Amino acid sequence: MTNLLVFEFPSTGPFGAEAEKAYSDLAADIAEQDGLIWKVWTEDPGRQVAGGVYLFRDEASAQAYVEKHTARLASFGITEISATSYEVNEALSLVDHAVLKR
Amino acid sequence: MTNLLVFEFPSTGPFGAEAEKAYSDLAADIAEQDGLIWKVWTEDPGRQVAGGVYLFRDEASAQAYVEKHTARLASFGITEISATSYEVNEALSLVDHAVLKR
Repeated sequence: MTNLLVFEFPSTGPFGAEAEKAYSDLAADIAEQDGLIWKVWTEDPGRQVAGGVYLFRDEASAQAYVEKHTARLASFGITEISATSYEVNEALSLVDHAVLKR
Repeated sequence: MTNLLVFEFPSTGPFGAEAEKAYSDLAADIAEQDGLIWKVWTEDPGRQVAGGVYLFRDEASAQAYVEKHTARLASFGITEISATSYEVNEALSLVDHAVLKR
């Protein structure tokens, strides 16, 4: 069953077009992550946070990513990380136009 | 610019297949929500929470939905609602297979 992951952490930027430049290599790396279906990159310059919402094919691949990404963020000096995992109700999501596979 | 919304609130169920039956009419109604691109229905029976992750075409339609859905949940007796809004970095999201339109 697909698993949805919400990451949020403090960020003073870059945001927007500057983030696009700064993180293009990271995004390309994440695109190859085992079990990843998609990631939406999120940011709120007003609250000074950034993060991502991820759909994984199962809980095991989501949890493996939580460990990997938490360590990667820590290597950037980011430690106040919120990572929340959910089961996905696939039938209801499909009614509401969600894309649950590549 | 697309806007991502994360809802979470306490729930003792129904979850899974029972939620699919209980909320099919609601899901059909949400599918027609102005500005909605997609919703992923989320649940965690272990933590006793449920919610959803929504992509809207802009912040105005996301905020209109926050007001509508908060009132609807309150009519179900649900008031401890967390609703968090984010800007979407569309270029990075597209690298990571996200679908940002219908």
